[in-house]
Amino acid sequence: MTRPWQVATIAGVGLIGGSFALALRKAGFAGRIIGVSSPRTVKAALERGAIDEALPLEEAAAQSDVVFLAQPIETILETLRVLDQHVRPGTLITDAGSTKAMIVARAAETIRTGRFVGGHPMAGKEARGVEAADADLFRGRPWVLTAPEPELEAWIAKIGARLVILPAAEHDRLVGMVSHLPQLLSTALASTFALEPHVARIAGPAAMDLTRLALSPFDIWKDIFATNTAEIDAALASFIARLTEIRANLTNNPAMAQEFDKAAGAARALRKLS
Amino acid sequence: MTRPWQVATIAGVGLIGGSFALALRKAGFAGRIIGVSSPRTVKAALERGAIDEALPLEEAAAQSDVVFLAQPIETILETLRVLDQHVRPGTLITDAGSTKAMIVARAAETIRTGRFVGGHPMAGKEARGVEAADADLFRGRPWVLTAPEPELEAWIAKIGARLVILPAAEHDRLVGMVSHLPQLLSTALASTFALEPHVARIAGPAAMDLTRLALSPFDIWKDIFATNTAEIDAALASFIARLTEIRANLTNNPAMAQEFDKAAGAARALRKLS
Repeated sequence: MTRPWQVATIAGVGLIGGSFALALRKAGFAGRIIGVSSPRTVKAALERGAIDEALPLEEAAAQSDVVFLAQPIETILETLRVLDQHVRPGTLITDAGSTKAMIVARAAETIRTGRFVGGHPMAGKEARGVEAADADLFRGRPWVLTAPEPELEAWIAKIGARLVILPAAEHDRLVGMVSHLPQLLSTALASTFALEPHVARIAGPAAMDLTRLALSPFDIWKDIFATNTAEIDAALASFIARLTEIRANLTNNPAMAQEFDKAAGAARALRKLS
Repeated sequence: MTRPWQVATIAGVGLIGGSFALALRKAGFAGRIIGVSSPRTVKAALERGAIDEALPLEEAAAQSDVVFLAQPIETILETLRVLDQHVRPGTLITDAGSTKAMIVARAAETIRTGRFVGGHPMAGKEARGVEAADADLFRGRPWVLTAPEPELEAWIAKIGARLVILPAAEHDRLVGMVSHLPQLLSTALASTFALEPHVARIAGPAAMDLTRLALSPFDIWKDIFATNTAEIDAALASFIARLTEIRANLTNNPAMAQEFDKAAGAARALRKLS
């Protein structure tokens, strides 16, 4: 048995960590929220009202019921090396990393005193940092957990996110297709355009739709490529195979009609369910 | 010398043809607009106020200063076989086909009495038919001409479109990259998703952006694939090569950082210029 959350630590009070803090408050969390971040971020988070105080990780973890790791993936992996020695027995440790298998594996090696459940709140926006934090960022968006965890699930529901429970490996395979592959298609398309000076004169909504993701900076993707390499490789391989087949069938009307029908059905299904 | 347009024929009074008629009117065209279309479309176009009267092609062409072919590409190619014998000397014939090289080549073979300039107004919307026609459809959008034509250029400016003069082959190469390739990427991505029941549970804005085009029905693409096969094939080949390179470089941070920088630069340039 664990007591209901009274003290929460948020490590990495950027857009996601800051938004989670604001969302908890808005949903009625009456306990204390401790921020662990760089001095600059901590100052901004205190000014934004996202956290009640700032402490070093060891001190924060020692008094918390839950520790939420909202740092870059590589930093989460590093934090997991040192965190367990500082927490009280039964402390829930969860995270917001965009890939799950390596994080869950690391936690399985290192977390003994606390309990770990991997998480991935699938929300974001272009602006970054706690200045852009928003209590409603997660509303209507999926929040993946790698295993059930009743109190965390209750807060996810209260902040308006949509709970999805997926094993870490299945999560990584799916986001490889649904998020990492689209990013790489957009980047590849935009860099194809980079060589063509006249493209901008005739680009329309199609080109705009497909190159919006290409505006993302590499630094948020580096850790994702490093920690989901095999699944992204498989998604790219399967996409390249499909595109090669389409290329071969370009003037085969029955085959292309079938491909378009299947694709339109999937695109419609996506819009109904999400 | 040709007289200023007093009578215009629009062959194919759907979304594009109907919008061009309404745009001409709004821009001050005081002459007569004759529609050539199926009985059902002609009735809707008359009700919509897009055309003044409907006539068979031969009769309409015989009294027109300009004939605007806004039919499907294959129908434009057929119309160009028979049109010239009906027009008066010097009549301007232009079109709205999404590919240009085959149409311009056909016109070069068949148009002797009239004069042909290929056109591609790069505008559209999801709804189709003259019921969805809109006098402002072309506002701010590129309108490609395959050669200069002063009076047509003046009307393109008056209806608010942005004139782009491109030789037919260069047009087809560019739209192969900027429009036809994005469509096929979107279709291929959505049909990849079709096999994965859980994708819809975690799909976010990235998946939505990249599968919107996949909602397009095949019937508007069939003629494009048939008449721009070589350029689309080349665009696919070059995109597949780039994606294969990205796949090989996935964990090569300097190479990927460079790829992302180049892509982001191109995506930003697209947004500044269009």
